[in-house]
Amino acid sequence: RRNPIAMEPLAARLRFVMEADRLKSVIRGTTLCDGSRRENSAEHSWHIMLWAWTLEEHSAAPVRLDLVLQMLLLHDLVEIDAGDNPIHGDFDAAAVEAQEQAAAARLFGMLPAHQRIALRAIWETFEASQTPDAIFAKAVDRAQPLICNLETDGGSWHDYPVRRAQLQTRVGDKVKRGAPALWAALAPRIDAWFAAHRPDPEADAPA
Amino acid sequence: RRNPIAMEPLAARLRFVMEADRLKSVIRGTTLCDGSRRENSAEHSWHIMLWAWTLEEHSAAPVRLDLVLQMLLLHDLVEIDAGDNPIHGDFDAAAVEAQEQAAAARLFGMLPAHQRIALRAIWETFEASQTPDAIFAKAVDRAQPLICNLETDGGSWHDYPVRRAQLQTRVGDKVKRGAPALWAALAPRIDAWFAAHRPDPEADAPA
Ligand SMILES: [Ca+2]
Repeated sequence: RRNPIAMEPLAARLRFVMEADRLKSVIRGTTLCDGSRRENSAEHSWHIMLWAWTLEEHSAAPVRLDLVLQMLLLHDLVEIDAGDNPIHGDFDAAAVEAQEQAAAARLFGMLPAHQRIALRAIWETFEASQTPDAIFAKAVDRAQPLICNLETDGGSWHDYPVRRAQLQTRVGDKVKRGAPALWAALAPRIDAWFAAHRPDPEADAPA
Repeated sequence: RRNPIAMEPLAARLRFVMEADRLKSVIRGTTLCDGSRRENSAEHSWHIMLWAWTLEEHSAAPVRLDLVLQMLLLHDLVEIDAGDNPIHGDFDAAAVEAQEQAAAARLFGMLPAHQRIALRAIWETFEASQTPDAIFAKAVDRAQPLICNLETDGGSWHDYPVRRAQLQTRVGDKVKRGAPALWAALAPRIDAWFAAHRPDPEADAPA
């Protein structure tokens, strides 16, 4: 389906990409790797696409790289309406989910029907975390803040009273599931940071 | 080629993506569409990937979308070393080219050999502007600042004494070549802005 001259679908698409510009103003809990400022969701999305591309070989299962990249390109777009909800923040998961579904309907709804359907399906597939592509894409998305935090002496971990065991269920298990080698590389450094900064009293208690 | 457990290529890849984080601190001449601040090259790269995806149907020739997205993901990475050179700024094209080639050698050189070769080839193909994929990718890259400038009452055009005819050769011809419908949609608005703000004396002179 090609249409190099028509005006109307083009105008709708331009309104969509102009609206998408607002993702550059959604500020995340994590900082740049040099700690100089907090990052926004648009540059974050670019960065983890590069991560996924270069780390593809370490996926737990073979992936379709083109779909992984498309998932990551779109994955945070709903934050334009729903905002960024830091993984260790306090939030109502059902309310966030409803906000994100409404955002997806509004934003993808700006596109011509065939694109609205295609892009939303890719986003839903990412959210569902069932395919190898989505599992790997989620692993990369969760791993990037870990590394930035390790590089900035704890980074956003200082802002949340997260404990090592919580980090495992919220983040570690998902990274390990999609990219086991990446998790194996990060886990010892994460263990060391938490042992030094936030020792778990139960870990020292007799079993 | 899959390697879900090896440590060494993974470590090299992590150094590469951490280095790539610096693209978030390369500031462009253009602003966000709301004019609130200048944009950086990482978020710009994310944005034009979304542009290319949604506008693919308007490419002058059929493209391989996966390659277009990969080109745009990588296209500005060399700016980490070479900086952003605004299209209407004063610069020595040969010197910039040499800086960008050195940057490509250093940055892609951080990756394992097969990825170094593959990623650099994709970047070189974009730079060469010969394939339909590269021609369309370049058109989208050039078009995005036009729209942001139109949305912000001239935007970065106020910072450079660019004239309408110069804009045509530096930008317009490339947008038209890769995405003729996009150019057709923008040209009347660009004509109107330049007629109002920077009328060309020669345009009024008798031929
Ligand atoms: Ca660019």
